[in-house]
Amino acid sequence: MTGRLTIIGLGPGGPDWITPAATRALDEATDVVGYGPYVDRLPDRPGRTKHASDNRVELDRSRHALTLAAEGRRVAVVSGGDPGVFAMAAAVFEALEAGDQAWRALDIRVEPGISAMLAAAARLGAPLGGDFCAMSLSDNLKPWEVVEKRLRLALEADLAVCLYNPISKARPWQLGRAFEIVREIRAPEHFILLARAVGRPDERLTIRTVGEVRAEEADMATLVIIGASTTRLIARPDGERPWVLTPRSYGAPA
Amino acid sequence: MTGRLTIIGLGPGGPDWITPAATRALDEATDVVGYGPYVDRLPDRPGRTKHASDNRVELDRSRHALTLAAEGRRVAVVSGGDPGVFAMAAAVFEALEAGDQAWRALDIRVEPGISAMLAAAARLGAPLGGDFCAMSLSDNLKPWEVVEKRLRLALEADLAVCLYNPISKARPWQLGRAFEIVREIRAPEHFILLARAVGRPDERLTIRTVGEVRAEEADMATLVIIGASTTRLIARPDGERPWVLTPRSYGAPA
Repeated sequence: MTGRLTIIGLGPGGPDWITPAATRALDEATDVVGYGPYVDRLPDRPGRTKHASDNRVELDRSRHALTLAAEGRRVAVVSGGDPGVFAMAAAVFEALEAGDQAWRALDIRVEPGISAMLAAAARLGAPLGGDFCAMSLSDNLKPWEVVEKRLRLALEADLAVCLYNPISKARPWQLGRAFEIVREIRAPEHFILLARAVGRPDERLTIRTVGEVRAEEADMATLVIIGASTTRLIARPDGERPWVLTPRSYGAPA
Repeated sequence: MTGRLTIIGLGPGGPDWITPAATRALDEATDVVGYGPYVDRLPDRPGRTKHASDNRVELDRSRHALTLAAEGRRVAVVSGGDPGVFAMAAAVFEALEAGDQAWRALDIRVEPGISAMLAAAARLGAPLGGDFCAMSLSDNLKPWEVVEKRLRLALEADLAVCLYNPISKARPWQLGRAFEIVREIRAPEHFILLARAVGRPDERLTIRTVGEVRAEEADMATLVIIGASTTRLIARPDGERPWVLTPRSYGAPA
């Protein structure tokens, strides 16, 4: 088969955070497949067809992209952030696994991108300077009991915890429940960071303590970072937002 | 103060993975500070001074960079991968916190990069398609007991686990011990991925089972990814390396 499928991370914001490799793969594509807002970001161009779809149909979208590639097209599947982090890479490989055996001979590539959590961390300082984890708070694809168990274990390990998909209309209570668990394990004076729409014009960064944070402060575009117990603030002059630091050292070194 | 300090992620490989924002910050710098091999990657340029240092002196390097910025220079501190993940961002903010109060008025920015773990994941398929964590296996800055405890909790949470700094001449036994712990919690047929020098000419990707992997297969340039229990392979024709997939779903959804 001569078709190609590249799963591309567009980063969380504008073109300043799209790698040259991702840009080249987009330039070479005859077809761009993805969630509407990501596809709409790209300019119209002769010889390139845009296929925008709804947010909830990752597997359909993946099968469509694989079918186009099997027809010999050069297909770009676009994701915000990095495609390997709660985005399109897993969906495409799930569709590949369950689909036509011939698809496995396709030229498939993944082009990494700047992930939302690392962009958020960069804006805040160094909140992920120690060990950390990334979890989706969505219970669409795993039981809520698994989410709770993982969150507890991650907090007991004293990792910083990045929560993707924290809240939506269809999942209104999960983040509040997660904050209850955080309050059992972290102290009220520890920190929780809310990073909304990083890299976009409506970017908003909020630093809260565990004691004061409310789930209503987050929305679908928010990445929530629960600090480790060692996460602290570095005050800045002139009312500027403090830097957030999770130091590299933890307890007494060996 | 008019100086500026930007902590820049160069990504794990060549220029194809350096963002336009990072390139611009490098172009504007009067001084580039970093570990020798990263600084050496950059071309010599009139008006830009390169300050290469040894790998073990992150805090000295950070103080030097802050001092240069306080003198009014435009300083770029370079890291491989992403500067916020076991790299220079935390070191610079630690130096800022402990240093001259006047430094806090400096214009400090962090430019995110493609992290080694996400580049490795992209090459392999979608091994981080579910929840995952990133841990440094180094016990230079935290007690080994903390490392073991965190690893156990992360494995019990059934996260995929990315191990940074897995092995070195000064830390020869830690990875072997970590694999012993993995064998207590994961089954022998589960997967461990070794991603060496991703994006560089000597890149090498190895898929092993928990039962067969040996610590000697990793070196300082290797990122180790311990799969979740759900991580599996998708065979490809013609003897090509299988794709690695950790699916998004886990157990029965709610």
